[in-house]
Amino acid sequence: MAKPEIEPRILKGFQDTLPQVALTRKAMIRTIEDVYSSFGFAPIDTPALEYAEILLGKGSAETDKQTYRFPDLGGRDIALRFDLTVPLARFVAMHINELGVPFKRFHIAPVWRAEKPQRGRYREFIQCDFDTIGSDSILADAETLLVAHRTMTKLEIGHTLRVNNRLVLNGLLDSLDAADRSVLILRAIDKLDKLGEEAVRQELSDAGGLTTEKIDSIFRYLSFNGAGNTEILAGLTDLLKNSERGALGVSNLRELLSALNDSGVPEGTVSIDVSIARGLDYYTGTVFETRMTDLPGIGSICSGGRYDNLAGLYTKRRLPGVGGSIGLDRIMGAYEELGRFTPRASNAQVLMTLMDEHSRSASLRLAMTLREGGFLVDTYPEVGGLGNQLKYGNRKGIPVAIILGENEVARGVCAVKDLITGEQQSDVPLATVNSVVGGILNR
Amino acid sequence: MAKPEIEPRILKGFQDTLPQVALTRKAMIRTIEDVYSSFGFAPIDTPALEYAEILLGKGSAETDKQTYRFPDLGGRDIALRFDLTVPLARFVAMHINELGVPFKRFHIAPVWRAEKPQRGRYREFIQCDFDTIGSDSILADAETLLVAHRTMTKLEIGHTLRVNNRLVLNGLLDSLDAADRSVLILRAIDKLDKLGEEAVRQELSDAGGLTTEKIDSIFRYLSFNGAGNTEILAGLTDLLKNSERGALGVSNLRELLSALNDSGVPEGTVSIDVSIARGLDYYTGTVFETRMTDLPGIGSICSGGRYDNLAGLYTKRRLPGVGGSIGLDRIMGAYEELGRFTPRASNAQVLMTLMDEHSRSASLRLAMTLREGGFLVDTYPEVGGLGNQLKYGNRKGIPVAIILGENEVARGVCAVKDLITGEQQSDVPLATVNSVVGGILNR
Repeated sequence: MAKPEIEPRILKGFQDTLPQVALTRKAMIRTIEDVYSSFGFAPIDTPALEYAEILLGKGSAETDKQTYRFPDLGGRDIALRFDLTVPLARFVAMHINELGVPFKRFHIAPVWRAEKPQRGRYREFIQCDFDTIGSDSILADAETLLVAHRTMTKLEIGHTLRVNNRLVLNGLLDSLDAADRSVLILRAIDKLDKLGEEAVRQELSDAGGLTTEKIDSIFRYLSFNGAGNTEILAGLTDLLKNSERGALGVSNLRELLSALNDSGVPEGTVSIDVSIARGLDYYTGTVFETRMTDLPGIGSICSGGRYDNLAGLYTKRRLPGVGGSIGLDRIMGAYEELGRFTPRASNAQVLMTLMDEHSRSASLRLAMTLREGGFLVDTYPEVGGLGNQLKYGNRKGIPVAIILGENEVARGVCAVKDLITGEQQSDVPLATVNSVVGGILNR
Repeated sequence: MAKPEIEPRILKGFQDTLPQVALTRKAMIRTIEDVYSSFGFAPIDTPALEYAEILLGKGSAETDKQTYRFPDLGGRDIALRFDLTVPLARFVAMHINELGVPFKRFHIAPVWRAEKPQRGRYREFIQCDFDTIGSDSILADAETLLVAHRTMTKLEIGHTLRVNNRLVLNGLLDSLDAADRSVLILRAIDKLDKLGEEAVRQELSDAGGLTTEKIDSIFRYLSFNGAGNTEILAGLTDLLKNSERGALGVSNLRELLSALNDSGVPEGTVSIDVSIARGLDYYTGTVFETRMTDLPGIGSICSGGRYDNLAGLYTKRRLPGVGGSIGLDRIMGAYEELGRFTPRASNAQVLMTLMDEHSRSASLRLAMTLREGGFLVDTYPEVGGLGNQLKYGNRKGIPVAIILGENEVARGVCAVKDLITGEQQSDVPLATVNSVVGGILNR
């Protein structure tokens, strides 16, 4: 074939979503929305494009570098959002008087980051955020973890929640008398999983200038991990008894676990993980991650925490909040790895074939009868060879086909073919087609 | 209050969507997706950002001017999609061998156009497209109109479908021997609704150089409008008997109406409108619009038609198709005008109040019991004044509140308050709460 005028291609780091994947993703998003809604979170939306000044705020070298930013035709300095948190801050700063507090919102939408593309990481991806704004109550923290737990349960994803509190980490820093080196220490702790103890000890000593005694203290703290929650709470209480904020962190953790227990989260699903910090500037209280039981190595599939002041750049009103975000693409990748995608290019349940011009009218009518009965019916648009039409149905993974020729129309019947088993029921009276199809689908 | 560091604001022509509107829009999108799916259309997605060369193709002054286009950090000339049709063309050119034909897809996603903002028109809006690619059958055209009809029916929008065929218009041009002035004539016909007969006659004469006789012919043609379909078909058959393509257009229209009738579309819902052209280059066969019975003046809420060759720029393979697009924002505007928005900031059905620390645990448990029963339950995150909590519920439009203090917990009961009527049932046994709440909601 000659070359087309323009070579069809997509940008590096971007992807097309074909029906197989889009069907699964859409179903997952509906489940997520339904769980968020079942806790009283309401949807909002914000523009994909905003003033760069708003999105970048004080900015950081990293977000600056990763942001799609350009002048619009009117010369305004604009950018595509790189997350849903900054737009939320701007949104509540503008609308909070109308919305009132507590304000519980969810936002499921794409964001764009000009990151180096990696396997499973794209420059456009969907974030699924939910937040409760304007409440300091630890119950809002507990609800955040509960939403994570319920969503994963509804998605049939075995999981554990790992929780910590930034005040506990602050308490540790107090006990080390090293609050001036907090960034370095938290970063080193964060890397423990990846680098191992030796490398982290080295870094704390070389870059952090910590004494061996203090480094031992940090590893004594980290060695709490793996013990039961009650044991960890007791250990932390003792370790942090001289730090007021450390003690508050421990008591918040205790209250959080108790509220989750009251809400029916099973023992063993939530465990304290004293190494979790989740970024350095943003969170101020509860922090959590969610691991997939079948694939813990892929990292957290739902993370979040509490922050003291969401929108400080855009309003003088203090707006504390707590929230979480589900990593939809990471879950999609895990589904693929675990072979959990439905290998279907359509969710149609019935293929209405078209045999000849004389039966066309009856076929169209029967397709509508099936749709009225709640079935998803794909009508083949062209009269012609049955083999071809059944091949189409098989390729799309449609489980049932209806065959209705001139002959059948005259006798008020049709044939119903099970495309999975190949079995065919002939002479099914048209009036009973819905129940016959229902029977095959429920098998 | 002192000024914030950064003034929160959004770009001209863009909008935030608050929960009231987002809830209605999300429900509408689900309905639309469900109808599309019931006809076997499957979802796809494509990147918001593409190579400008791909999106702009041969381009036109208009799309060039309206496109957000910029160099990315790697110096690539990229742009935000301004519709879902060009990305579909690129998508099928790349994937059609894997997808097979007929390929029936839907795509509901935002697009961006740097148009002059007007009332109800934004620079970011959602398109809801569905298309059947790779079939020349008129049954695919009929299904397109049927999908439009079923969607409007499910959205409870009274509507009429107006249909025409570009071949009929071509037949008219043949009969006038004025195929060289087709653009001008079609544009003038398109403007009849807006400008009226006098102005259009003037334009056809001044700019088109048409004789009075030919202009009379055009108005004779246009005067078919308003008659019954059978009458129009007879009139067109006669008028266009000397044009082969005109005659084919009439026969296609006839077959289309017959298939819609077979599919149960009520008499009177579809009417031929010989003035519809829908753009100049793209469509080649069936063209249609959908008017809202209650607000015909807002224009078409679902339009589309048949095209000969979707992806000619990107592949040498001829890919005919037919499809439609629902004007979600226009419908949202109409809902607002007709007062059809649910004036609710939440779709929660039950507010679980929190009375005191001692009943907290029981309240959290009861909230989960209600959720297990399928109810959407918003738990107030702070223990405290009942008045405040009920005010929160009222502001969000939540219809039922549960009140459960220490006292009630001791007796295994709670109070259920109907926030619409103000009526309160006291001492409802906890085991019967789900059915009591269900009773109030079903009232």
